[in-house]
Amino acid sequence: MQYPNGKLFTEEEATLLQEIILHRRDTRGNRFLGMPLEERHVDQLLTAALHAPSVGFSQPWEFVLIRDKNTRQQVKESFSEESAAAGNAFTEDRQQEYSRLKLEGILEAPLNIAVFYRSSDKPVLGQASMKETGLYSVVCAIQNMWLMARALNIGMGWVSILDPVKVGHILNAPSGNQLVAYLCLGYTDGFYTQPELEILQWEKRRQRSAMLWYERYP
Amino acid sequence: MQYPNGKLFTEEEATLLQEIILHRRDTRGNRFLGMPLEERHVDQLLTAALHAPSVGFSQPWEFVLIRDKNTRQQVKESFSEESAAAGNAFTEDRQQEYSRLKLEGILEAPLNIAVFYRSSDKPVLGQASMKETGLYSVVCAIQNMWLMARALNIGMGWVSILDPVKVGHILNAPSGNQLVAYLCLGYTDGFYTQPELEILQWEKRRQRSAMLWYERYP
Repeated sequence: MQYPNGKLFTEEEATLLQEIILHRRDTRGNRFLGMPLEERHVDQLLTAALHAPSVGFSQPWEFVLIRDKNTRQQVKESFSEESAAAGNAFTEDRQQEYSRLKLEGILEAPLNIAVFYRSSDKPVLGQASMKETGLYSVVCAIQNMWLMARALNIGMGWVSILDPVKVGHILNAPSGNQLVAYLCLGYTDGFYTQPELEILQWEKRRQRSAMLWYERYP
Repeated sequence: MQYPNGKLFTEEEATLLQEIILHRRDTRGNRFLGMPLEERHVDQLLTAALHAPSVGFSQPWEFVLIRDKNTRQQVKESFSEESAAAGNAFTEDRQQEYSRLKLEGILEAPLNIAVFYRSSDKPVLGQASMKETGLYSVVCAIQNMWLMARALNIGMGWVSILDPVKVGHILNAPSGNQLVAYLCLGYTDGFYTQPELEILQWEKRRQRSAMLWYERYP
């Protein structure tokens, strides 16, 4: 087996990765610029996604790149239905706030990417005890893409207020495929300094000590 | 709302992120060195995780840092049970190959981190139509940590051959918490140039054209 020690990164390079992580944001429709993404940028986004880790090297991801307006309009309709239903779950004062939020950029972003999980038809190494690791592999690909988008100064938003079955039908997805994410991508006029829901005081950042345990739960 | 345009990254910086992504590997027990991780490195790993995106800014993640050998021994026992059962699913020639693979580093890595999902007790913005997005947020945190580990030249392995309920009991996790990942972390003697399962010809890298669709599935 070939075994070089592999590339060593410097402290400065690790710090740069931290910068990219800290400056990544969820971009919504009010921040996208109209022009299409350059092909070389789309290519870099996909390269990042396709080099994510996957359980048993199964690479169980599929990407549908959508630019067609009619398709995006149909997806937007599913968003509108789901969003109206979801709003009702909040308390009354939150419902008003919720209705004012811009939560997607399906029509404003020049590129939408639907990301599906496709399960293997044979046993996958490492997936027997935790079936969800197939889905988790797809999420790793999405997070790679998100960080690469930020490094390329491209905005990306993850729309989860959708009926995944309806979106599958719109895209003619095979019945076994499962929608993991619907992404909106495009150049943007900028990135907020903090998560938008933090700025709007919808949620607070949790204290680190509330999320860390040592050796075991008390 | 404060709104500066945000930091702009250069092409060279995006290329560096691509390098980190391409050089990330799953590290197993045969590659870990014994010495403990420096606290500042553990801190950088957690900072990366805690700045991942999360649905509705819910930050639904909890991390248990484990160094105790007795605890790790108990987790290792769950691995051994699950691995023996999983091996039987493969064809006969693969079973032999499978039994020779080193698939975890629970005892060799100086630090184990169990990552749990803890669901919110109130409605989460964006989670009503796709409940799994809570789990997906936790996976984004793990992938951030994995890339940061690589940039710090720290090996990380994700062990999924475990009974998540047993591991929860070992760690005294609240019954509502769900184990998403069990990670092994430590300094390493190097990183393979390709995924180990690719080098060993267990799986091939899939062709890009088999994973990409335009506008919709045919």
